[in-house]
Amino acid sequence: MFELKRVLGTLTLAVISLSVSAIEWQALPTKAPEPANNPTTPAKVELGKMLYHDVRLSSNGVLSCNSCHNVMNGGDDNRGGSIGVRNQVGGRSAPTVWNSAFSSVQFWDGRAPSLEEQAKGPVTNPGEMGMKSWDDVVVRLKAMPEYTKAFAAAFSGDSSVTADNAAKAIAAYERTLITPNSAYDKYVKGDKSALTEQQVKGMNTFAEVGCVGCHSGAAFNGPQLPEGTGFYQKFPANENGVFEARYDFSSDLGRFEATKNDADKHLFKVPTLRNIALTAPYFHNGKVQSLEDAIKIMGTLQLSKDLSAEQVSDIAAFLNGLTGEFPKIEMPRLPAYANKAFPTE
Amino acid sequence: MFELKRVLGTLTLAVISLSVSAIEWQALPTKAPEPANNPTTPAKVELGKMLYHDVRLSSNGVLSCNSCHNVMNGGDDNRGGSIGVRNQVGGRSAPTVWNSAFSSVQFWDGRAPSLEEQAKGPVTNPGEMGMKSWDDVVVRLKAMPEYTKAFAAAFSGDSSVTADNAAKAIAAYERTLITPNSAYDKYVKGDKSALTEQQVKGMNTFAEVGCVGCHSGAAFNGPQLPEGTGFYQKFPANENGVFEARYDFSSDLGRFEATKNDADKHLFKVPTLRNIALTAPYFHNGKVQSLEDAIKIMGTLQLSKDLSAEQVSDIAAFLNGLTGEFPKIEMPRLPAYANKAFPTE
Repeated sequence: MFELKRVLGTLTLAVISLSVSAIEWQALPTKAPEPANNPTTPAKVELGKMLYHDVRLSSNGVLSCNSCHNVMNGGDDNRGGSIGVRNQVGGRSAPTVWNSAFSSVQFWDGRAPSLEEQAKGPVTNPGEMGMKSWDDVVVRLKAMPEYTKAFAAAFSGDSSVTADNAAKAIAAYERTLITPNSAYDKYVKGDKSALTEQQVKGMNTFAEVGCVGCHSGAAFNGPQLPEGTGFYQKFPANENGVFEARYDFSSDLGRFEATKNDADKHLFKVPTLRNIALTAPYFHNGKVQSLEDAIKIMGTLQLSKDLSAEQVSDIAAFLNGLTGEFPKIEMPRLPAYANKAFPTE
Repeated sequence: MFELKRVLGTLTLAVISLSVSAIEWQALPTKAPEPANNPTTPAKVELGKMLYHDVRLSSNGVLSCNSCHNVMNGGDDNRGGSIGVRNQVGGRSAPTVWNSAFSSVQFWDGRAPSLEEQAKGPVTNPGEMGMKSWDDVVVRLKAMPEYTKAFAAAFSGDSSVTADNAAKAIAAYERTLITPNSAYDKYVKGDKSALTEQQVKGMNTFAEVGCVGCHSGAAFNGPQLPEGTGFYQKFPANENGVFEARYDFSSDLGRFEATKNDADKHLFKVPTLRNIALTAPYFHNGKVQSLEDAIKIMGTLQLSKDLSAEQVSDIAAFLNGLTGEFPKIEMPRLPAYANKAFPTE
């Protein structure tokens, strides 16, 4: 399909060795891996869906997980920085929740080793959902008897309304948010008419110029690693004054912000490219609006290649073929907040 | 079931004459009336659902119709005043969207004669969704090709993306938001075990003390009137310094704010009692937290009756029997906001 050696030659940045499997074209599984201590069950998924869509998990009662990771859409909010409570604007672009179950770490800097740990973060982040503590969240949840019932159905034990269980339920729901059967998936499964001629050309270009060195695997986010082990790359890898002036890529120190380890400066988790056509704007700071610009920039900054307009256009066409089928989701029924007004901040 | 004369004797406030039909116990229809110029169709309902749940109909891209009228819940936001853009707090409690199709006018002051007219209001209200104009909304919608397709599917014509059609689609969706088969409905249809003994006692008390004088009909919001004709009552009907000091009911002049007609001072639309147990806090300003308190206050202010604790408790039990069955709703798929960042206010 393309020459392995030619691709390997461009990979100056891969932190793990590339195997042939890393550049095999893989379809997206319809089931995500799940941790041994949190098997996915219908009751857990239903509870997780309730919590994920419940604005009462934010201090002002306006924002839910779904506000920034909108499952009715591409799983994000199409912003450079998300809007938190008191109209605060976040510093990084919200990653998509779709197929996040195929990421071995969460957040741009990989600071959460699992979906369970990720779920706990934004709720009590003062710039995001703004709850003072998970204890406060639990108090709110316990005030609604239907939540107590839903937790009891999902988890054993009398006092199952806990932060850990809430996070487990949200993670279980997120593991169902998978978008298989993109044109690309159909193509690699044998339906050669699923991609257009330009998309196939773009697919080969994507591999040949080296994108696949990092954006490999079924989710195009790198090789499959054990949960908790991240696949990071330095971004930008090449210095470029023009781009820096225009897009301010380097002021965010990436994984270093989480670890304070100098070796982690400017390392970012390699994000999935699934549904990338739906999740503008691009990069960790969302400073790039169009997919074509993002591809061009990646060529220059990461692959030391000045991609032609044709190459960019072909790769963009291919990436549009990564938009999957979104499962139908029934809206959850949320418990009543009975006999009292929701507190205004 | 109860004596008609006895009830009529208490109705000092009814603005239209009561007929026997007004105090017949009616089950909620499963289909709402629809205007001749906006018949409900699946394509229109689907488009309306997209628009209703799309935060891009607000200036800051955070609020949708659903933010204040949450269909995952009781159809409101459980607040005295809803939260608009820039954290503004509204002056009236958001009415439930559930069964709003059975209201002949919309808003507390009845200023919208139809769901179609209502739908246009909050989007461009600077204190609510904050769009500068519907023209701006149309520009946003037209930037997303899937919306153009959805409008074309719902409405004929090449340039079907208009404010009027958006409002028609939203209204069509809202006409599907009906909650039949409450315990009360089952009871009046013949299942005498559907209500508890206390609920039946409360139902009779509700009629005997005169609540049914205004809260009549299938939606408990008054007699069926032609669309555009409102059923209003003065609230508070009786002066009461203690309640006034505590709840500030009189500072809002109600329908007068819309008409500037002195005769409309303190008139409010009689709201539905369907799902009332889910929509605390109560009254136009949401100053009353519990259903029991609301019942007690209504007795004093509207019926000149000092209801006993037992009567209040029985009526509350009955009103809990008005919580209906909520239809399963599939989440809409929203069009991508492709190749650009959503503007931050």
